[in-house]
Amino acid sequence: MKLDKNKKILIVGLGLLGGSYARALTDKGFYVTAITRSESSIEYALREKMIARGSTEVDPALVSEADVIVFALYPHIFKKWIRENAGLIKRGAILTDVTGVKCSNVYEIQEMLPEGIEFIAAHPMAGREVYGVENSTPEIFRGANYIVVPTDKNTEEAIELCSDLGRVLGFADVSRLSPEKHDEMIAFLSQLTHCIAVSLMCASDDPNLTRYTGDSFRDLTRIARINENMWSELFLENREALLSQMENFKQSFDDMYSAVRDGDEERMKEMMRLSTKRRALFDKK
Amino acid sequence: MKLDKNKKILIVGLGLLGGSYARALTDKGFYVTAITRSESSIEYALREKMIARGSTEVDPALVSEADVIVFALYPHIFKKWIRENAGLIKRGAILTDVTGVKCSNVYEIQEMLPEGIEFIAAHPMAGREVYGVENSTPEIFRGANYIVVPTDKNTEEAIELCSDLGRVLGFADVSRLSPEKHDEMIAFLSQLTHCIAVSLMCASDDPNLTRYTGDSFRDLTRIARINENMWSELFLENREALLSQMENFKQSFDDMYSAVRDGDEERMKEMMRLSTKRRALFDKK
Repeated sequence: MKLDKNKKILIVGLGLLGGSYARALTDKGFYVTAITRSESSIEYALREKMIARGSTEVDPALVSEADVIVFALYPHIFKKWIRENAGLIKRGAILTDVTGVKCSNVYEIQEMLPEGIEFIAAHPMAGREVYGVENSTPEIFRGANYIVVPTDKNTEEAIELCSDLGRVLGFADVSRLSPEKHDEMIAFLSQLTHCIAVSLMCASDDPNLTRYTGDSFRDLTRIARINENMWSELFLENREALLSQMENFKQSFDDMYSAVRDGDEERMKEMMRLSTKRRALFDKK
Repeated sequence: MKLDKNKKILIVGLGLLGGSYARALTDKGFYVTAITRSESSIEYALREKMIARGSTEVDPALVSEADVIVFALYPHIFKKWIRENAGLIKRGAILTDVTGVKCSNVYEIQEMLPEGIEFIAAHPMAGREVYGVENSTPEIFRGANYIVVPTDKNTEEAIELCSDLGRVLGFADVSRLSPEKHDEMIAFLSQLTHCIAVSLMCASDDPNLTRYTGDSFRDLTRIARINENMWSELFLENREALLSQMENFKQSFDDMYSAVRDGDEERMKEMMRLSTKRRALFDKK
């Protein structure tokens, strides 16, 4: 199933990601509407012609006409929204999302939905250290990865439509993972990295550090500027997978510690050669 | 003492940093020569007009005519060079370096030098993940920090000349630290970050990770592509300071681990707010 131009797309939650979806899809000629709590976000999006219509309330007209609904909300708000408003969604509609964790909500939301409405989860791996619709731009999708996260309940049609959405948005790579595999991957690649950056920033209170810093520290801690409400929720929603990846990292860091302490130059070099070889594979194409 | 244009500057070690010094200084109208082991590096530097003369041997003429000598060598090679060739250096010459650790070599080198030859240590905090004179460019100094690292043995004149060199090269900030304070700072800001990046790359051997990665992981592990010979030497030369910073980080990471494990949302948010506030101070001016 292709994402054709006759489909009406509703974005729920017009922040950085929701706004970037709206911009990209409107630019491509889709009919895009939005629901978000903030009046100024709707006004901004209308003024910028990112959306055709918008509302700060759950407007039944907007919800019921939508063929595709994209949820760009915090996990617990997403679940609450579905619980309260699923009845407004038309039969045949496809729902998708941008949530960074999956096991803790995908199954539950699929359970909650009435017959004939399908939720196919997705994770667009794009972001910035700034927030809000004013900072949104389809540029964040360029060169980035988009993961479709189906369960046994999903149809091949919905999976295809959701994959097509990723391609239309401009992602460099569209792939598929199970919720379990997704959460394990994301615990390592995203949540663990944020834990490390935050921990590092908390590890020294020397006020003079800024004067002596180099790019390596700046790059490593870029993500230490963090939205604490969103990320604490993501960490807890994926707690077991995250703890397990934190343990893997601790083990590896302890290996390095021992090598330094024991003056084991060969062991250090071995780790550095391994990391160099592996890291070379991660450059953007 | 200003670094005036009549001074002859010799660069010993024409890699990424030495080459960038040569390019910057030649561009500014200084007379720059170089000694480095590799024939092709000298040929490249002459062809690119980065240096006026060069040699792959320790040419007594080049050494004895130099007013300023910049050593851009690995720590152990630097010490060996001084031990073998200090007698060739003319009285009144000022020596400086680019070495990333200080306590383990500054005092020793100052001890080794004959009367009338002064070594003033410096650490230009600039680098790239690529190596060699072919990749050198003064661009790496732009927006970066340059630290002069004097001991009690240094004269104010030499400290000023060395600071002026940093300004001439184009560094954004030139500051001063004792060897002890420098090594503590660098253990945290540079060596610890490299330990973390390498450990993280070694913590998972999942070959599929590259397909799902986002920018946060890419940025955090940029420095995991590492020159294992140089960095293992730097780690061991600064072992005590590094171990102590690794312990600080482990403590902080363990705090985060406990907060996640215990579902202590408030503790997580507190760390994230602290890291956000601190990180904001580190952006480039």
